[in-house]
Amino acid sequence: MAQAGRRPGQTETREEILEAARRRFAEQGYDGATVRGIAADAGVNAALLHHFFGTKQRLFAASMNLPVDPGEMVPRILEGPEDEIGERLVRAFLGLWQAEEGRAPFLAMIRSATTNEQVATMMRQFLERAVLARVAEARGVPKVRVAGIAAQMVGFALLRYVIGLPPLVAASEDEVVAMLAPVAQYYLTDGVHRPDTPRG
Amino acid sequence: MAQAGRRPGQTETREEILEAARRRFAEQGYDGATVRGIAADAGVNAALLHHFFGTKQRLFAASMNLPVDPGEMVPRILEGPEDEIGERLVRAFLGLWQAEEGRAPFLAMIRSATTNEQVATMMRQFLERAVLARVAEARGVPKVRVAGIAAQMVGFALLRYVIGLPPLVAASEDEVVAMLAPVAQYYLTDGVHRPDTPRG
Repeated sequence: MAQAGRRPGQTETREEILEAARRRFAEQGYDGATVRGIAADAGVNAALLHHFFGTKQRLFAASMNLPVDPGEMVPRILEGPEDEIGERLVRAFLGLWQAEEGRAPFLAMIRSATTNEQVATMMRQFLERAVLARVAEARGVPKVRVAGIAAQMVGFALLRYVIGLPPLVAASEDEVVAMLAPVAQYYLTDGVHRPDTPRG
Repeated sequence: MAQAGRRPGQTETREEILEAARRRFAEQGYDGATVRGIAADAGVNAALLHHFFGTKQRLFAASMNLPVDPGEMVPRILEGPEDEIGERLVRAFLGLWQAEEGRAPFLAMIRSATTNEQVATMMRQFLERAVLARVAEARGVPKVRVAGIAAQMVGFALLRYVIGLPPLVAASEDEVVAMLAPVAQYYLTDGVHRPDTPRG
């Protein structure tokens, strides 16, 4: 839809940039690849690339066909009532996965990561920079706790959408939220809503 | 090591049974494959198969090279002090994944499941019959909550051992237990250690 008014040349340039980005991210990882290098490979200047895609993070999301830059969701989740942060996170995540066209690229990335070390590296670096570091800093919790939520959500997606575990497939959105939101809340509000732990 | 005293004929028979099992489980799923059919494919009688492998569940674990039948771990986790059940579960899980030779077959299964519908079906049925149904019944909690723990643990394994997310890789066993055990405890002791949920 957004492409309707574009001249063919622009569409091609855009595709060439995305193609160059995919190659660089795969070869050099998310950290190693530079916007300048990607622009050079695509034969455009960095200003034009910036005009199309903004930050490296958004370029990465676009090159992986992600329906949204996960890093851009972070501020929206963190804003709002403190005691509903877990629920906002789970609903945002479900929103991404609910639609077939939304989840296909995520599934493709998980799939490739399990068989391809380059993709695993790329995914690791992006997840750490764009998501963990940001949430941890904004909330003042250790990165390992944000990684705990990521593990819960990725595992949920794997068991629901790849393995198709019946109790998870059958659960409504509200049931999923009722189940996962307290876990996300626990990780993000260290010590506040935390249940008693066996190790004290 | 266990093979040292075996006669070659026995080792071959054992391998033929495992090969037949892998084929049947892949083609017919965990539920569809029968011990009798597997025995017939391997050209042995069901009694001999039972002598080597016991139950279908143990045969499945052996054919997938799992270091242990996950279903057999269940009673060991459920036994013991109520308020340490989450910790026992997390420690048992980590025990399986800690050693390279232990986690390789699990990783292989996750990998295949993401690219192969037959493997996904097999894994789904085994997980539901051998793990979810049992834990849910023993604890009197809905299967969906046991699936919640499975999601947390599988996601953790994926992010730590496949993606190699630094905060998870760096965490000691005790740190992992301190983080994950309350989540497992929450799922298994519905309403007891549960933190307040945003939805009341």
